[in-house]
Amino acid sequence: MVPNTITEAELDGIYAFAVQLGKDAGHLLMEAARSRFSSTKATNEKSTIPEFTEKDSAVDIVTQTDEEVEAFIKTAINTRYPSHHFIGEETYAKSSQPTRPYLVDPATPTWVIDPLDGTVNYTHLFPMFCVSIAFLIDGIPVIGVICAPMLGQLFTSCKGRGAWLNETQRLPLVRQPLPRNAPAGCVFSCEWGKDRKDRPDGNLYRKVDSFVNMAVEVGGRGGKGGMVHGVRSLGSATLDLAYTAMGSFDIWWEGGCWEWDVAAGMAILHEAGGLITSANPPEAWETAEIPEAKLGSRLYLAIRPAGPSEWETARTAQERTVRAVWRRVRALDYTRPGA
Amino acid sequence: MVPNTITEAELDGIYAFAVQLGKDAGHLLMEAARSRFSSTKATNEKSTIPEFTEKDSAVDIVTQTDEEVEAFIKTAINTRYPSHHFIGEETYAKSSQPTRPYLVDPATPTWVIDPLDGTVNYTHLFPMFCVSIAFLIDGIPVIGVICAPMLGQLFTSCKGRGAWLNETQRLPLVRQPLPRNAPAGCVFSCEWGKDRKDRPDGNLYRKVDSFVNMAVEVGGRGGKGGMVHGVRSLGSATLDLAYTAMGSFDIWWEGGCWEWDVAAGMAILHEAGGLITSANPPEAWETAEIPEAKLGSRLYLAIRPAGPSEWETARTAQERTVRAVWRRVRALDYTRPGA
Repeated sequence: MVPNTITEAELDGIYAFAVQLGKDAGHLLMEAARSRFSSTKATNEKSTIPEFTEKDSAVDIVTQTDEEVEAFIKTAINTRYPSHHFIGEETYAKSSQPTRPYLVDPATPTWVIDPLDGTVNYTHLFPMFCVSIAFLIDGIPVIGVICAPMLGQLFTSCKGRGAWLNETQRLPLVRQPLPRNAPAGCVFSCEWGKDRKDRPDGNLYRKVDSFVNMAVEVGGRGGKGGMVHGVRSLGSATLDLAYTAMGSFDIWWEGGCWEWDVAAGMAILHEAGGLITSANPPEAWETAEIPEAKLGSRLYLAIRPAGPSEWETARTAQERTVRAVWRRVRALDYTRPGA
Repeated sequence: MVPNTITEAELDGIYAFAVQLGKDAGHLLMEAARSRFSSTKATNEKSTIPEFTEKDSAVDIVTQTDEEVEAFIKTAINTRYPSHHFIGEETYAKSSQPTRPYLVDPATPTWVIDPLDGTVNYTHLFPMFCVSIAFLIDGIPVIGVICAPMLGQLFTSCKGRGAWLNETQRLPLVRQPLPRNAPAGCVFSCEWGKDRKDRPDGNLYRKVDSFVNMAVEVGGRGGKGGMVHGVRSLGSATLDLAYTAMGSFDIWWEGGCWEWDVAAGMAILHEAGGLITSANPPEAWETAEIPEAKLGSRLYLAIRPAGPSEWETARTAQERTVRAVWRRVRALDYTRPGA
């Protein structure tokens, strides 16, 4: 499975290194978060009249933490594996690369990392934030490490070695069949995102249309009503994928993500037995072949690992669920700079 | 503050009892969840062809756990405090009471508990579930205990004794001013709920209209665009309130909740310094006095504890935020049986 440039033993070493790196980076994130608690704890709230809103200050702290954690990870990787490529959100944002259509060069083993996913959550100290570390061979994520330190949850996987919660509990936690009438009975995870333009055919309205189709009672919306069991929005694409791999979310549908938002989650989802394809329905959605999601496509639909049932295989159930979603969602308009 | 029928020392005793009860009940919930992991772990997934979908089985397990945990809590309370009233979700659902308009008799000290809030999450092993225990004097929640065992988070409060995370960290975690242009900059928490009827003026469409107003760019939707920082849906009203008390969510807006969904969260939010009022805007929303939410009203709008700023008090900022929400949301149609 692994190309002959990297042996299985070497991959074991890279995996162990990545897991420790995820733990260490998660610790840094949490320390920075805790420093905000304590400073407030010492403050007499009634006599404090700040010269700036603390909200602004929080944003500064977050930007600084983001950069520091990325630098920490980058240095560790460059020191241990100087021949590997490195792609990080902060490094990318500051570079002149945003016109490149795809970031990952398949010819070189590459690390794709997000030092802090769920930035808004982190700013507000809502626990749904994490560090995300992926290692790619031939452009495919083969190792994924997601550490959510305030949740005390570490998700890890390596190709052929299983996907794990906190290194002890195999993912998915329960492998059960997908509901026969999916999306009914499913937990549907989706995000409102940052594109909030009030344009009738903009992404926000396309998303909302899709959310409502998934949520409405069966038979509603001209037959599109999906009556999902629940709609969840966490504000972290990375954790959405982790919880899909865990089996907690049956369906995750989103557009606009970048490589570092999804690379580690894709590795973990794959290893757990999940399926990931495009958010945007193909023209012949009822019969079209279901393509593997392309890292860099920015459009994702993930289905959790499923158990087989009396009447179908796990893969058949996942593909049936993909089509049930495609039937109800609208194509999103996210492109890549330069693509 | 406490009526002379219950002394401060007695209240301390009741608080300690409630906290231990919350921990013990949380432990029971987690044990039942863990038993599902393990049974799956031992299974050879490829050879298993279940005779029923495990989804059905999961629902059975959840119902059983729900009832067992409520019985455990009820027995403990009846043994220790036989003169107190007890209201629990499961007990209520089985009783002939659903025609009573309000459940809590203010004349008697009363416990209001939900053995398992976030049932759908629990079924899917998504960590956002909890046990919720409130103690009321004169119909007002004065003690709140929320234990989310899979998150490792325990929220507790007692009137005059502060609100706490894991008994060591005071809530809110950070007390910062509310954004001057709220709801912009705010994390907005809301739920899709169970009423999914495809009725043009039904609750689902009223909710979605409101969500979109809160989310759209400033200036959009005829001036109603709120451009909130993020929209979150967890699937647990109790945890929505806990995270509002923590300061992670700035605004929580919801209809349809019952007493046991919100009693403990209201106690914790109040003690942390938050505000809770009605989800439904009064006619003169710009100037109307902001009423305290009535336990039993089923309609809630909560604003997080705020810090003062140079230009306004915390309370002024909270009331300004309430009006900013009322301006953007539609009245929801939830009534009580018998009311």
